[in-house]
Amino acid sequence: MSVSGILKKAMPEDAQASLKKRHSVISGRSDFWSSSDEDEGVQPHEKAIAAGQPNPPYCVRNIEQNAFGRREIEIAEQEMPGIMALRARAKDDKPLKDAKIVGCTHINAQTAVLIETLAALGAAVRWAACNIYSTQNEVAAALAHAGYAIFAWRGESEEAFWWCIDQCCSPSASWQPNMILDDGGDATHLMLKKHATAFKHIKGIVEESVTGVHRLYQLSKAGKLCVPAMNVNDSVTKTKFDNLYSCRESIIDALKRSTDLMFGGKQSVVCGYGEVGKGCCQALKALGCVVYVTEIDPICALQAAMDGFRVVKLNEVIRQVDIVITATGNKGVVTREHMERMKNGCVVCNMGHSNTEVDVHALRTPDLLWERVRSQVDHIIWPHGKRIVLLAEGRLANLCCSSLPSFVADVYLLPKKMDEYVASLHLPTFDAHLTELTDEQAKYLGLNKVGPFKPNYYRY
Amino acid sequence: MSVSGILKKAMPEDAQASLKKRHSVISGRSDFWSSSDEDEGVQPHEKAIAAGQPNPPYCVRNIEQNAFGRREIEIAEQEMPGIMALRARAKDDKPLKDAKIVGCTHINAQTAVLIETLAALGAAVRWAACNIYSTQNEVAAALAHAGYAIFAWRGESEEAFWWCIDQCCSPSASWQPNMILDDGGDATHLMLKKHATAFKHIKGIVEESVTGVHRLYQLSKAGKLCVPAMNVNDSVTKTKFDNLYSCRESIIDALKRSTDLMFGGKQSVVCGYGEVGKGCCQALKALGCVVYVTEIDPICALQAAMDGFRVVKLNEVIRQVDIVITATGNKGVVTREHMERMKNGCVVCNMGHSNTEVDVHALRTPDLLWERVRSQVDHIIWPHGKRIVLLAEGRLANLCCSSLPSFVADVYLLPKKMDEYVASLHLPTFDAHLTELTDEQAKYLGLNKVGPFKPNYYRY
Amino acid sequence: MSVSGILKKAMPEDAQASLKKRHSVISGRSDFWSSSDEDEGVQPHEKAIAAGQPNPPYCVRNIEQNAFGRREIEIAEQEMPGIMALRARAKDDKPLKDAKIVGCTHINAQTAVLIETLAALGAAVRWAACNIYSTQNEVAAALAHAGYAIFAWRGESEEAFWWCIDQCCSPSASWQPNMILDDGGDATHLMLKKHATAFKHIKGIVEESVTGVHRLYQLSKAGKLCVPAMNVNDSVTKTKFDNLYSCRESIIDALKRSTDLMFGGKQSVVCGYGEVGKGCCQALKALGCVVYVTEIDPICALQAAMDGFRVVKLNEVIRQVDIVITATGNKGVVTREHMERMKNGCVVCNMGHSNTEVDVHALRTPDLLWERVRSQVDHIIWPHGKRIVLLAEGRLANLCCSSLPSFVADVYLLPKKMDEYVASLHLPTFDAHLTELTDEQAKYLGLNKVGPFKPNYYRY
Amino acid sequence: MSVSGILKKAMPEDAQASLKKRHSVISGRSDFWSSSDEDEGVQPHEKAIAAGQPNPPYCVRNIEQNAFGRREIEIAEQEMPGIMALRARAKDDKPLKDAKIVGCTHINAQTAVLIETLAALGAAVRWAACNIYSTQNEVAAALAHAGYAIFAWRGESEEAFWWCIDQCCSPSASWQPNMILDDGGDATHLMLKKHATAFKHIKGIVEESVTGVHRLYQLSKAGKLCVPAMNVNDSVTKTKFDNLYSCRESIIDALKRSTDLMFGGKQSVVCGYGEVGKGCCQALKALGCVVYVTEIDPICALQAAMDGFRVVKLNEVIRQVDIVITATGNKGVVTREHMERMKNGCVVCNMGHSNTEVDVHALRTPDLLWERVRSQVDHIIWPHGKRIVLLAEGRLANLCCSSLPSFVADVYLLPKKMDEYVASLHLPTFDAHLTELTDEQAKYLGLNKVGPFKPNYYRY
Repeated sequence: MSVSGILKKAMPEDAQASLKKRHSVISGRSDFWSSSDEDEGVQPHEKAIAAGQPNPPYCVRNIEQNAFGRREIEIAEQEMPGIMALRARAKDDKPLKDAKIVGCTHINAQTAVLIETLAALGAAVRWAACNIYSTQNEVAAALAHAGYAIFAWRGESEEAFWWCIDQCCSPSASWQPNMILDDGGDATHLMLKKHATAFKHIKGIVEESVTGVHRLYQLSKAGKLCVPAMNVNDSVTKTKFDNLYSCRESIIDALKRSTDLMFGGKQSVVCGYGEVGKGCCQALKALGCVVYVTEIDPICALQAAMDGFRVVKLNEVIRQVDIVITATGNKGVVTREHMERMKNGCVVCNMGHSNTEVDVHALRTPDLLWERVRSQVDHIIWPHGKRIVLLAEGRLANLCCSSLPSFVADVYLLPKKMDEYVASLHLPTFDAHLTELTDEQAKYLGLNKVGPFKPNYYRY
Repeated sequence: MSVSGILKKAMPEDAQASLKKRHSVISGRSDFWSSSDEDEGVQPHEKAIAAGQPNPPYCVRNIEQNAFGRREIEIAEQEMPGIMALRARAKDDKPLKDAKIVGCTHINAQTAVLIETLAALGAAVRWAACNIYSTQNEVAAALAHAGYAIFAWRGESEEAFWWCIDQCCSPSASWQPNMILDDGGDATHLMLKKHATAFKHIKGIVEESVTGVHRLYQLSKAGKLCVPAMNVNDSVTKTKFDNLYSCRESIIDALKRSTDLMFGGKQSVVCGYGEVGKGCCQALKALGCVVYVTEIDPICALQAAMDGFRVVKLNEVIRQVDIVITATGNKGVVTREHMERMKNGCVVCNMGHSNTEVDVHALRTPDLLWERVRSQVDHIIWPHGKRIVLLAEGRLANLCCSSLPSFVADVYLLPKKMDEYVASLHLPTFDAHLTELTDEQAKYLGLNKVGPFKPNYYRY
Repeated sequence: MSVSGILKKAMPEDAQASLKKRHSVISGRSDFWSSSDEDEGVQPHEKAIAAGQPNPPYCVRNIEQNAFGRREIEIAEQEMPGIMALRARAKDDKPLKDAKIVGCTHINAQTAVLIETLAALGAAVRWAACNIYSTQNEVAAALAHAGYAIFAWRGESEEAFWWCIDQCCSPSASWQPNMILDDGGDATHLMLKKHATAFKHIKGIVEESVTGVHRLYQLSKAGKLCVPAMNVNDSVTKTKFDNLYSCRESIIDALKRSTDLMFGGKQSVVCGYGEVGKGCCQALKALGCVVYVTEIDPICALQAAMDGFRVVKLNEVIRQVDIVITATGNKGVVTREHMERMKNGCVVCNMGHSNTEVDVHALRTPDLLWERVRSQVDHIIWPHGKRIVLLAEGRLANLCCSSLPSFVADVYLLPKKMDEYVASLHLPTFDAHLTELTDEQAKYLGLNKVGPFKPNYYRY
Repeated sequence: MSVSGILKKAMPEDAQASLKKRHSVISGRSDFWSSSDEDEGVQPHEKAIAAGQPNPPYCVRNIEQNAFGRREIEIAEQEMPGIMALRARAKDDKPLKDAKIVGCTHINAQTAVLIETLAALGAAVRWAACNIYSTQNEVAAALAHAGYAIFAWRGESEEAFWWCIDQCCSPSASWQPNMILDDGGDATHLMLKKHATAFKHIKGIVEESVTGVHRLYQLSKAGKLCVPAMNVNDSVTKTKFDNLYSCRESIIDALKRSTDLMFGGKQSVVCGYGEVGKGCCQALKALGCVVYVTEIDPICALQAAMDGFRVVKLNEVIRQVDIVITATGNKGVVTREHMERMKNGCVVCNMGHSNTEVDVHALRTPDLLWERVRSQVDHIIWPHGKRIVLLAEGRLANLCCSSLPSFVADVYLLPKKMDEYVASLHLPTFDAHLTELTDEQAKYLGLNKVGPFKPNYYRY
């Protein structure tokens, strides 16, 4: 998944809402499988079901928003040179012409570019959201309007969430899925539980989240995973680029948009020095923050030290820092006790995978006042007036980052060759000129001239 | 002026509008000196004048928005430790108790903190906007609601603009101004032209813009400046902190919010290596951009080279760069001819003072299509489909930055001592511990133990 | 091997020579197994052999230099906290009490610390040099003086080189080696060829060079490697710390000491963006160089782009750069043709493994004049007067760096746990405080509280 | 003075000595005004005087060393593009044809380039050393051999020091000096005291040291300075380039050569955040050090904070740091008490002007053992075994840096135009392409197209 688009998710909902309002063509009419703005309390599928529409071609919030969504997709295309290059290169071959893909991911402009690329390469797709909050309604509308079977809206109910996924998974005369592209494992789970027979036709699963990879691993251990599964989460291009390079930019963006704070001279602590933590530290240091790091792994701790960061226990600096960032994949990293000791105005931001890195639950006590000051920004106010600033209620401030490396054996890693191919697709946009080996050099190095260039364990 | 608040000005208007909508208490009533949302086409002062209200206590867009504005001010207070420390230190002394200040600046949360501090120190104030677009209506409402004589709203007409300033300048039985705090010189100009007699009571002018400083200098040369004027624009704390450190953060923010582009690997050229340019270059380099610099001054050019940037003429790189930033204070730096040669998708952003650095006028030709894609973001589309992305129509993407050094002689610079004092007010927020000279050391250095610590020409 | 000490190898020989002269106690006497300064043309072992001394306890250049060597070792101990901590922790257990180790490595103060640590842990050792030039004679003298069986001096003849190694490998009544610690594979080779029977007693080989790892791999493929071999070259602590972090410092040091050039504003190209290349680029950029990168691997190329470096082919920049650094592990990277096009004064420096990265051989033609201007610095002078500055004749400017990843299957990588242990030994010196998992967190993550903390494929 | 050459001064004397030995042609003969190696205890001028040679054409240690010195000068020429460009541009005009210059500076290869440039521009010169230790004998020999009136050698006695300067100052039939180029004020002092009449012919003094500028200032205050004096110390090109950029590189070099320490992860404190301190901090941070700063000036302290450094009092961190660097120009900054609390192995290095920044005197007590471990490196050993590592006995580890801004009024600063000219001479070596103003732009900015481009108070 590309980086830039995910950043957009962090845009205040209000900004998006108002953009939508300005741009969308407001017509009086609303079709059955979408609703107008006025119906925001209504779940779109209920209305449709109530209207007795059995096999919906799609189900989104408001199909009328498609024009604005299309523009967002077009903007995204410009920032996704890799996938656009792939689309251009492979669209005549239709290499995916037999693929029938169930997709279950965040739905935003970047995903839309992916979906339309899969289609351009010949695949048939049905797509649902992997998260009840993250769908960009306008993008879903644009996809539906373009003829794709999209089932997703922002603010799905639990019931609607599974209904949507089921619209993608359940087989019919015209739809026999044979691949799953999953982010979190929900489509895989539903397919396995509810459509066990159809699951046998699945030829491969691509999973991009840590959680989903864990689930697959457990299935594999229990002998229930009869299907090859590809762990995309740990490919180089994902771990290094989505995590390190993306978070280097998005941490700045996330903090700036939500709090307007100035970084220069601020003290910050980053919990975890994996790829995400490294990216955060690098950016904060570059903009003049004093940065401390906490780590449990001595190798990463030593890296932090060599990179010029003080490695501390959280307790040692918690009273003095202005910014606390979690990027561990662990839970209970920032506790109520820590937050008791934070200074007034301290900003708490989770960039890691787990929404339990910050123990937000422990802040839901009667003595503390929660005040929402902006979209995704809460002030938690102590009786004596101290405030801490909590972003996104401890959920991921930025969806792109996952920091927990997974101990997976049976699930395949992306082959080196493919990682290199993905990287090569991005080079032209940077006007980067790759050097080619001469025959003699290739022989000297014992390499094929077109790669792979590194052993599997190479760390980059 | 503080840094953080100015950043807020770059927030998409839509985001602000929707924030306003959610937060403001919408009552049916509207007083004479403000209007409701429904009246956006109406200039507030006309309605009031039509209603026969002669001596308005204030005039803002919608007084009902005050609660939201107050919250913005409170947030700003947390990011302005220097001025809040000053308020705490000096409020009992009321050192400004005889000051009657005409203010004419951008009106936003940061200005509000300044205004309320001046009042806390004993001053009486009347305040207008220095720019017809930049007023944050909610903040103006909050100030008016708190009893301040504020005359400003977003979208003032030319006539309204001068009417507002005149409400502050024109003397009356109860109002004999004796100081001017100006940003651009308009209040000084009006006072001098229209209220020449009252102008004689002015004891001092503080001017913080380059333009205003130029005007003062010309007045001084023409022998018409009978009043001491303080050039705040060139104080260390302004040039280094507002320009270098602030722009280091705001260039990232401005580009990210408006275009969502990813910086890593992008090629960019920064025109001008003054404080603003230095800040931009530092930030872009830190986030992985390749950065080129253009300069006219050999010393600054050498600095750029020593800092690791290629010093080029714009023509040499214009075809290859993804981002063009102007920070020269000069005009015609990026011409139509340059823009003809830019590649598709190139982003053009002015961080300098002058809105003529980019020759936007030359883009208003029939062959080019302008498409507004977001607030403050236009795509300029060539017949063959090439787009360039223009931010803020070539106006300052960020209001805080001015890069033109001014040749001023007769106008006083802020005394070193005061610069040092301003700096010292900010240190506690960074938990920075200043070392004090021993008597012996002070003697050795020939310094007073409390400063000033540097000669006037010291460059920092 | 620690980093700092290796840097010392780059010290101009003259500096060392003169230090030696000043510090060493010059006595008139010289024992049989070492020589005095006056005998520099003589190979020490010849003198000894000539004197009819059969089983030498050691053989070094001049045992009298031991005091100065001992001081160097003591200084090195201060910069090797990891190994000193290990010595302190494990010396009572004598975990190596049955080990009889043949060592064949560079011999310098750092190696001496290693040797004395192995001994402190219970091992018996006999040690030779893996390189005829790199021995620090004073250190060898100090080790010999302390009773270790050291066979090494700077400037060994080819015959002496193998004689020395054989003193370590050949079994006797009192010496039955059972381990080999090799750097380049020469001890393993000699043992296998000449002492095949004794080789069967070898229980393990530790190899730290790329070349040696290659040799082992070929032995393994040929079915001749009946002994477990440990590839230390590709452990995290070696690849990241010896290569990336060490080269970050040593490239600066190597260029500065040999050429006194100023980095600010200089243009440089780094061939290869592996760990060594990354370290070089980071340091040069930090000191104000403009840095270009060449790469054959698209992933590394993309990393370079994201890190802000222009990825080019060497031809594109060769005319304009001031510094050319090779770090590819490949051969023929910088050709005579490239050097023809370099500008006057261009510095050429190899930081990679192979001494054929720069085609130095092609510079040995009658039209070019070689002029040695300092130790390890040659000017190659073209007929028309152009000079290029070649460091170390294209050999490694810094011995610590190896950039060629090796495709090794049968040879074991250092277990993660051991890598983590090595890292943890270094943390106290940085006053780095590791965070410990709670039981609950460990369970949540599925980790043992004491590690290993990452899967084997984790990239750091 | 150029930067690179000064770095060379930090080269261990032994290295230089041995280089000398290898390169110089040792002939049996020695002329009257220089000595052979064997006479190192003898002051050259005594021998000459004893030989009854009255008007020496030069007096150096050993004229035979000239070939090696010449090579050093040639290398220096390559690193001094500014001055070489000036030599090329102006040598036909002979703009200095009437100048008769007394020079009194450090004598090294860079000074030699300066001297030969002055001569090429038409000046006559006589030159002595400003420091009894800093002369590079080979360079002095090369200059003498080329016909220049050089009076300097390493290790001058106090008496010889003044004798040498007097050879330059004292007027004769053929020598009527009219300019002084002074570094420390000794030539000016001697001229004024001993040759008051001749002093009246002096048309100008150029002084480049802080100390010398102070002396001039005092003369000026006392009414004794009847001659225009140019304070070169505070020009932009000196303060920014010699101090900031040069120290950024030389601190690394100085520490590395003397101690071989690895910077990554080390904790360091830099006392003083002027240009020198800024350069040190930037370099140390870039190489992975944790850096603390102490400051007395709130503006500089705020700059340090905004640049990401913790501003502390020395006491707060003295126990934990590995490196202490002084760059204050103040005295008694690091006291015995501080040193009592440093940890074992702490390195103490003065980069500032004053040799009293570190109270070295307080370390000369019987309880402490001084051990010289390398040239310019002492271990100070406490009774319980703790060592601190003191560089250059607290004298400037690097001669190029001076950090004390001087309060000078009557002494002229280098005009902006000249500063810009000096900078422009350096641009070609960086292949930096200056942009030229169009007529219209120049008019718009109110600037002359060829500069000066900035007001005098501009801070760069």
